[in-house]
Amino acid sequence: MIKEGFYLSHIPDDTHLGKYVVIEDNVTIGKNVSIGHHTTILKGTQIGDNVTIGCHCVLGIKPATNARMRKSSTGHPHLNIQPHTRIGHVVSVYSGTQINKGVFIGDHASIRENVLIGEESVIGRAAIVELNTIIGKSCTIQTLAYITGDTILEDHVFIGPCVSMSNDKYMGAKEYSLKGPYIKTGAKVGNNASLLPGVVIGTDTIIGAGAVVTRDIDDGIVAAGIPAKKLNR
Amino acid sequence: MIKEGFYLSHIPDDTHLGKYVVIEDNVTIGKNVSIGHHTTILKGTQIGDNVTIGCHCVLGIKPATNARMRKSSTGHPHLNIQPHTRIGHVVSVYSGTQINKGVFIGDHASIRENVLIGEESVIGRAAIVELNTIIGKSCTIQTLAYITGDTILEDHVFIGPCVSMSNDKYMGAKEYSLKGPYIKTGAKVGNNASLLPGVVIGTDTIIGAGAVVTRDIDDGIVAAGIPAKKLNR
Amino acid sequence: MIKEGFYLSHIPDDTHLGKYVVIEDNVTIGKNVSIGHHTTILKGTQIGDNVTIGCHCVLGIKPATNARMRKSSTGHPHLNIQPHTRIGHVVSVYSGTQINKGVFIGDHASIRENVLIGEESVIGRAAIVELNTIIGKSCTIQTLAYITGDTILEDHVFIGPCVSMSNDKYMGAKEYSLKGPYIKTGAKVGNNASLLPGVVIGTDTIIGAGAVVTRDIDDGIVAAGIPAKKLNR
Repeated sequence: MIKEGFYLSHIPDDTHLGKYVVIEDNVTIGKNVSIGHHTTILKGTQIGDNVTIGCHCVLGIKPATNARMRKSSTGHPHLNIQPHTRIGHVVSVYSGTQINKGVFIGDHASIRENVLIGEESVIGRAAIVELNTIIGKSCTIQTLAYITGDTILEDHVFIGPCVSMSNDKYMGAKEYSLKGPYIKTGAKVGNNASLLPGVVIGTDTIIGAGAVVTRDIDDGIVAAGIPAKKLNR
Repeated sequence: MIKEGFYLSHIPDDTHLGKYVVIEDNVTIGKNVSIGHHTTILKGTQIGDNVTIGCHCVLGIKPATNARMRKSSTGHPHLNIQPHTRIGHVVSVYSGTQINKGVFIGDHASIRENVLIGEESVIGRAAIVELNTIIGKSCTIQTLAYITGDTILEDHVFIGPCVSMSNDKYMGAKEYSLKGPYIKTGAKVGNNASLLPGVVIGTDTIIGAGAVVTRDIDDGIVAAGIPAKKLNR
Repeated sequence: MIKEGFYLSHIPDDTHLGKYVVIEDNVTIGKNVSIGHHTTILKGTQIGDNVTIGCHCVLGIKPATNARMRKSSTGHPHLNIQPHTRIGHVVSVYSGTQINKGVFIGDHASIRENVLIGEESVIGRAAIVELNTIIGKSCTIQTLAYITGDTILEDHVFIGPCVSMSNDKYMGAKEYSLKGPYIKTGAKVGNNASLLPGVVIGTDTIIGAGAVVTRDIDDGIVAAGIPAKKLNR
């Protein structure tokens, strides 16, 4: 079959390539990788063995800004995708990010630069992960959830659909060290909850749907409401 | 004009095809169909007469999972798009789903497998419909709304922008039969409301913007607040 | 290098073109423009000098509707992108919209017809701007925010992540002149707040995260809660 694509890097013989795939230079591709139609792999991206990538993705994007936006300096310059990761369709991922083994990234998701995603975590459909964020192992980020920049999720964290976070206390008005939420192991955040900058959510704590978390929440409790308070049960 | 595309199925002469369209095998295409640039139609997709599909879509996706995600078994294996449906740009739709006559699907929307969308319904821009969900006739799902899995919408339901739903009471912590909301004929849900798993919203009931619906809501009332309660008017 | 694209308009020699770019007819392109892989530029689009466009975008979309959706009549028929604008990846923008100098549009964003975006404003990742909306200068619309139709933002407005707006008081049930919020200069809206149709938010006013704004809010205050009320501080 005629290959209809544009490749500037070496493609192993066992790569399953869709049509109109673009692979720029200095891309490395492991064994048994599948890349869907119309997907674009930008310079320097590193793809491990047994990775599956859907159609219409853009991987390895270099950060861009305008005069009014913050810059980020990334430690490692390339996007690194570890083995057995599965990336859906219409996904964008930036360079300087590392996606560990067995991660699943849903369709229409977008992940910025300088992010680390731990093994076996799931990033939901149309979820967004901003820059400088660390997501632990076996976390579940559900559909349309928004993980802001400078956020830490420990392991086994569950973020429900449409959860919102912010990391800028002064909403652009002051110089401020941006700080997202810190969510500890096993915590669960219900759908459409709002988390304010820098809040800490304790180990195994549950936050109710639609709650607005304005202060730190202790370990092992259930909290809900606006502002979120411990429920007596 | 030279056709610049990749086709493994029969394309009727009256099909209006954009550039770099990919059509895999066993795709059937009706009369007077329009397919935009860069769109990908995957194996077995059935497209009725007078269907219009925008640019950069991916239609007929086969479900994929990782070790920590649920599987779905779909009754019918293909994506079936009935006549006079209009699909926007950058849309993804899974196989095993049926889209009835005259439906409109907005740009950047994503629809999972085993979904039924009734005649003349509108799925808004960047709205997401998860698996095993039934949407009735003449429903309006507005922009960025999230229709979770295992949900039923009867006819003439209105879901405002950014409405959030969930279907997993235990947020991944227990074995549980997933159950989304059940929304009856003519009900209207205001923007950014949150619906909890399994709640029933009554016929012609109105839910206020930003409400959190934690319990079933009767027919024909107006409810709002956190948790949502009947308003006395 | 062989150009792999499909062009029906004149492309200046200094244009940096990705692979599989589609440029329809009557497109004008200024000096030093960059267009990423797989991007589609539809008929009549006007691109100024020093504009950068990412991969997988669709620019210049003509509005489409079904029987149950409103029509819009746009004054100017084309998409006009002024110099030094930067458009991310997987972005869709409609015709009849003007994007002024130095604007930044994030990945996965979608902007409808008949919109005006003022100089140096930032439209966040996956944010959506509906039709007939005016956004002033140096505004910041953050990730996943939803700017409904018929909305006015003056200058230096900050809209936090996941903010939701609506413009239809009767949710499709009555004939109604649609009216979105009116947000005055320097106002800031916290993440995941919900704004109801036609509300006015005063100059330099701050709306808290998760608030539901049901009535007009005065200039220069801080308001939060459901419904949003002035905080005493």
